[in-house]
Amino acid sequence: MDSHRFDAAVYARRLAAAAAATADAGLDGLVITPGYDLRYLSGSRAQTFERLTALVVPASGDPTVVVPRLELASLRGSAIAELGLPVRDWVDGNDPYQLVLAALGGAPAATAVTDSMPALHLLPLAGLLGVPPVLATDILRSLRMVKEECEIDALRKAGSAIDRVHARVPEFLIPGRTEADVADDIAEAIVAEGHSEVSFIIVGSGPHGADPHHSYSDRELQAGDIVVVDIGGAYEPGYHSDSTRTYSIGEPNHDVAQQYSLLQRAQRAAFEVVRPGVTAEQVDAAARDVLAEAGLAEFFVHRTGHGIGLSVHEEPYIVSGNDLPLTAGMAFSIEPGIYFPGRCGARIEDIVVVTEDGALAFNNRPHDLVVVPVS
Amino acid sequence: MDSHRFDAAVYARRLAAAAAATADAGLDGLVITPGYDLRYLSGSRAQTFERLTALVVPASGDPTVVVPRLELASLRGSAIAELGLPVRDWVDGNDPYQLVLAALGGAPAATAVTDSMPALHLLPLAGLLGVPPVLATDILRSLRMVKEECEIDALRKAGSAIDRVHARVPEFLIPGRTEADVADDIAEAIVAEGHSEVSFIIVGSGPHGADPHHSYSDRELQAGDIVVVDIGGAYEPGYHSDSTRTYSIGEPNHDVAQQYSLLQRAQRAAFEVVRPGVTAEQVDAAARDVLAEAGLAEFFVHRTGHGIGLSVHEEPYIVSGNDLPLTAGMAFSIEPGIYFPGRCGARIEDIVVVTEDGALAFNNRPHDLVVVPVS
Repeated sequence: MDSHRFDAAVYARRLAAAAAATADAGLDGLVITPGYDLRYLSGSRAQTFERLTALVVPASGDPTVVVPRLELASLRGSAIAELGLPVRDWVDGNDPYQLVLAALGGAPAATAVTDSMPALHLLPLAGLLGVPPVLATDILRSLRMVKEECEIDALRKAGSAIDRVHARVPEFLIPGRTEADVADDIAEAIVAEGHSEVSFIIVGSGPHGADPHHSYSDRELQAGDIVVVDIGGAYEPGYHSDSTRTYSIGEPNHDVAQQYSLLQRAQRAAFEVVRPGVTAEQVDAAARDVLAEAGLAEFFVHRTGHGIGLSVHEEPYIVSGNDLPLTAGMAFSIEPGIYFPGRCGARIEDIVVVTEDGALAFNNRPHDLVVVPVS
Repeated sequence: MDSHRFDAAVYARRLAAAAAATADAGLDGLVITPGYDLRYLSGSRAQTFERLTALVVPASGDPTVVVPRLELASLRGSAIAELGLPVRDWVDGNDPYQLVLAALGGAPAATAVTDSMPALHLLPLAGLLGVPPVLATDILRSLRMVKEECEIDALRKAGSAIDRVHARVPEFLIPGRTEADVADDIAEAIVAEGHSEVSFIIVGSGPHGADPHHSYSDRELQAGDIVVVDIGGAYEPGYHSDSTRTYSIGEPNHDVAQQYSLLQRAQRAAFEVVRPGVTAEQVDAAARDVLAEAGLAEFFVHRTGHGIGLSVHEEPYIVSGNDLPLTAGMAFSIEPGIYFPGRCGARIEDIVVVTEDGALAFNNRPHDLVVVPVS
């Protein structure tokens, strides 16, 4: 077996479940071009754009892979050969959309397509199929959202790896160094601690911490800065870590320390409310209510969390208006934050998985504001 | 001005030309989500996926930018503010597709969409517009394909930078080192020589050179290897280099030397046939005929070249069946290759621009097989 993917049996199960969900939705098939859905269903990391590569999963019958002959090698490393899926290769001058149609049975078909399928392929395909496609997101949601044991294991390892990076962050936070210097050190640590790649790095010092979407800049760290460090990477076979801790360079002032302790309570409240049957928006509300009672509602400007897996942001979204009931196996972030424009921000983020007994965290560094002594 | 983009006047001209081409095609407007077309038309490098960012260019009237409020910062660095384009921001809960419709005049509209628009946005947008969209590629083709002076200047600088990398490649090619070791050195050199990022690296040694789509591997170089090195990077404001040279570790055998000299003639023949009015397929045929006359036709398994600019592969494609007449300002690769499965491959690639007097090369390293002495 290849560390870039799970055993072929995992993909066989997923393909069968996807076909069943397609049939249940009254559709004739799925058409999946390169992206996370393709990786989820086949282990393939193909990235072709100009020339069509597609996994076609009919509601009944064998899935087929359509691939440019020049890109046949891109299927290596996937489970496609081991599963014995038929592969229809094509060369420039052939019409690959006809191959998709044939794989669906040859007649006009009601299909669902992956959300990343580019217009370049979607428009000619839709023209040929005769029925406007819908998004496969709805078909694959319950599959992708509820993690299997092998996925939970990968997310756990990713979480431990990013915890080891956070353990090293204080040594990087030296006044006079820039956020970019710190980000360089973190990037190296993310890989050194076992990730296969860096996904994102936020080092938001002082006023930059008040922008939840800041990445990093040439701002130099100063004694007295509060620093939001939100980092993540991909861990083979492609599952993500994502964890935030907030650091104080030198002792924080009293106001900050007090607001931070409320944030800690908010994060904890959301964690404690998690269990099967509770809705996503109830988890959001649990964190939000704590901050609202303390008069900080207006400073918590984003949702409480997002699902995570092969992609960093996926369902379930932990947000007001999402009445999806949680079920065991769902994995998502719990990451309330407070943001004071022009001054600073703070955020605490762990990835958790829902179990029958409540939330289990994959990140286990202390939640306290980490005070970095100034020498 | 920002080195990440051209002067705002460049984008103002492009937007006006895009609107005129849209009107000429009998369409009501263009809808452009993040990608090369957005970068071409506005200088924006926004990369939002989940939440809709779109530049809407009506056939008449002002272009409008639709953007998630959280991503307003992603417009910084683009020419959008300097051009004074109206920006309609939206928050979760709003319907951004309605904002697109409003920017098109509020009524069902015939639009063209960028080829990378994901199904996630294209399907709801198409449902709202009432008329199936077409690809903007056709509208923007003649604009993007014919380079302006500022683009030619960027491509020239990119070409010189990759030439400097090729000048250093012989020192990296030491028997016992792996293709991956060499690729690491090349990646560092690509950035050191002035590119802002590495786009791709192929180090195809010995039998690996026979696969035109090989990247690099753990194969160790050996004396006697023929090595295909095809490399490129992005040069601010985002224009690409792409150049191939073939190296021999130690003196090549007689057969290889003779076949290589035919490849040199083929590359030269294609270069010499380039001038305004000649078709893309005539350039392809010029290279192919030389190899065919020598009995090597079956070993030249790909098209002769591809256009280049903000993307590495774009129109015009130098391929049989493309009867597009070349015009001054088109930039593309001329890269015939010969591939002997299980043995080796060879390729020579330069980027050229069409001028009134013929082709002008942006790559100027010698075309000879580069013999690397074995110590």
